[in-house]
Amino acid sequence: MLPEQQSRLAVVLVRARNPYNIGAVARAMHDFGFSDLRVVNDYPVPFEAARSAVHASAVLNRATQPSTLAGAVADCTLVLGTTAVGDRVLEHPLYTLAHAVPRVQAHLDAYPGSKVALLFGSEKTGLSNAELSHCHALVTIPMNTHTAERHLSMNLGQAAAVCLYAIAQSEAVPTPPQPPPASSGDLERLTVLLQEVFDRSGYARRNPGHARELNVRRIVRRMTASHEDAAVWSGILRQILHALPSTPATDL
Amino acid sequence: MLPEQQSRLAVVLVRARNPYNIGAVARAMHDFGFSDLRVVNDYPVPFEAARSAVHASAVLNRATQPSTLAGAVADCTLVLGTTAVGDRVLEHPLYTLAHAVPRVQAHLDAYPGSKVALLFGSEKTGLSNAELSHCHALVTIPMNTHTAERHLSMNLGQAAAVCLYAIAQSEAVPTPPQPPPASSGDLERLTVLLQEVFDRSGYARRNPGHARELNVRRIVRRMTASHEDAAVWSGILRQILHALPSTPATDL
Repeated sequence: MLPEQQSRLAVVLVRARNPYNIGAVARAMHDFGFSDLRVVNDYPVPFEAARSAVHASAVLNRATQPSTLAGAVADCTLVLGTTAVGDRVLEHPLYTLAHAVPRVQAHLDAYPGSKVALLFGSEKTGLSNAELSHCHALVTIPMNTHTAERHLSMNLGQAAAVCLYAIAQSEAVPTPPQPPPASSGDLERLTVLLQEVFDRSGYARRNPGHARELNVRRIVRRMTASHEDAAVWSGILRQILHALPSTPATDL
Repeated sequence: MLPEQQSRLAVVLVRARNPYNIGAVARAMHDFGFSDLRVVNDYPVPFEAARSAVHASAVLNRATQPSTLAGAVADCTLVLGTTAVGDRVLEHPLYTLAHAVPRVQAHLDAYPGSKVALLFGSEKTGLSNAELSHCHALVTIPMNTHTAERHLSMNLGQAAAVCLYAIAQSEAVPTPPQPPPASSGDLERLTVLLQEVFDRSGYARRNPGHARELNVRRIVRRMTASHEDAAVWSGILRQILHALPSTPATDL
């Protein structure tokens, strides 16, 4: 992967608890040439402890601490969540790491200036369903499946090292630039508008399952809209909201 | 890689100091389906501390503690040493991880029952030249080369995770079995005999550089002899020693 493309891959740690692990992720990023670390937590992360990890400082000094996951990925046009799968019901496309890497490469090749986010959840629980609803697809590292034991997750620092090694190894493919895709910020604005339309139109009352926030967020991610189309859709939804009566429709 | 082949790859830690790192390596082995861990140290390793690493116990319970590196790899027919390269003068073939993986796979495919050793050195210094002289080839993980900083080594647990992920991903290729190659034990016996021939014949006195132990060991590793040929060579060297005068030849 070209250095310029590596600078467009953000690693997002969601509810990582152990400063040693945050330091290990930063070190792996530094080792493989990545620099954009975003740490989303309910409390300020003690980066001082993480900085004790050798070679992690350069990345940690640049790390940001967005207050929400939506904010952390707002500028990204492809959001991939890592998961150990397990018994979770999946509502997203799922790729092994080896199959995800060419998709990341193709996205960075096709959309100049675009950003890709790679999400890692907390050491104990991974990414929650609410967190996964911000993702376009999931990535899993194939592990030992020959043992009877169900082994559900890797160490965070090791999982990050394996993913970043595989991505850094990927070769750029010359590709004609494509129209810019919608960012997560674009899609989240659409999600909020669509949810309001569902509420105000009475759709939410009739179809409470489809209208739940996570489902709305996921259906919008599955649209794979361009940035321009997302703006058009926003205008359509705003006009619909303008035209709807201000109180929710009641059933006849 | 087939599970039976995974059982024939040994991870050898040489002078690893930090029990946490040993535990992390054991965990990565478990994650990717490897089980043969060998720990070579001058002192008994406090495995109890390493066992605290989640999921590492199954591997650590089986781990052996050979007293020498020669003993640790004696049953192996391909020995690969990991290195961060740096400014070291290399006396061995050097492969990137991506190029080393198919060689490991081909060896395990071609030689039924053969064992491959993957060596990792101490966290601080890596493998010494004496330790590298036991290797047939070196492996390096390509890292960030776009920075001015010379960054020389990865975290041990992360390096092991990346190597084992790459090896586990490799696909077996049906191959006709080849005659068994010489093991490291075979080659070390040849090394000792050849050194004795060098001493007793006066060669060592005339060519002290070529006769140094590390150089003798390396020249024998470069022979790539079969197990059977190694036995023939041992017989030849023993006969030479039998025929040589018991005191070293003196120059006329």
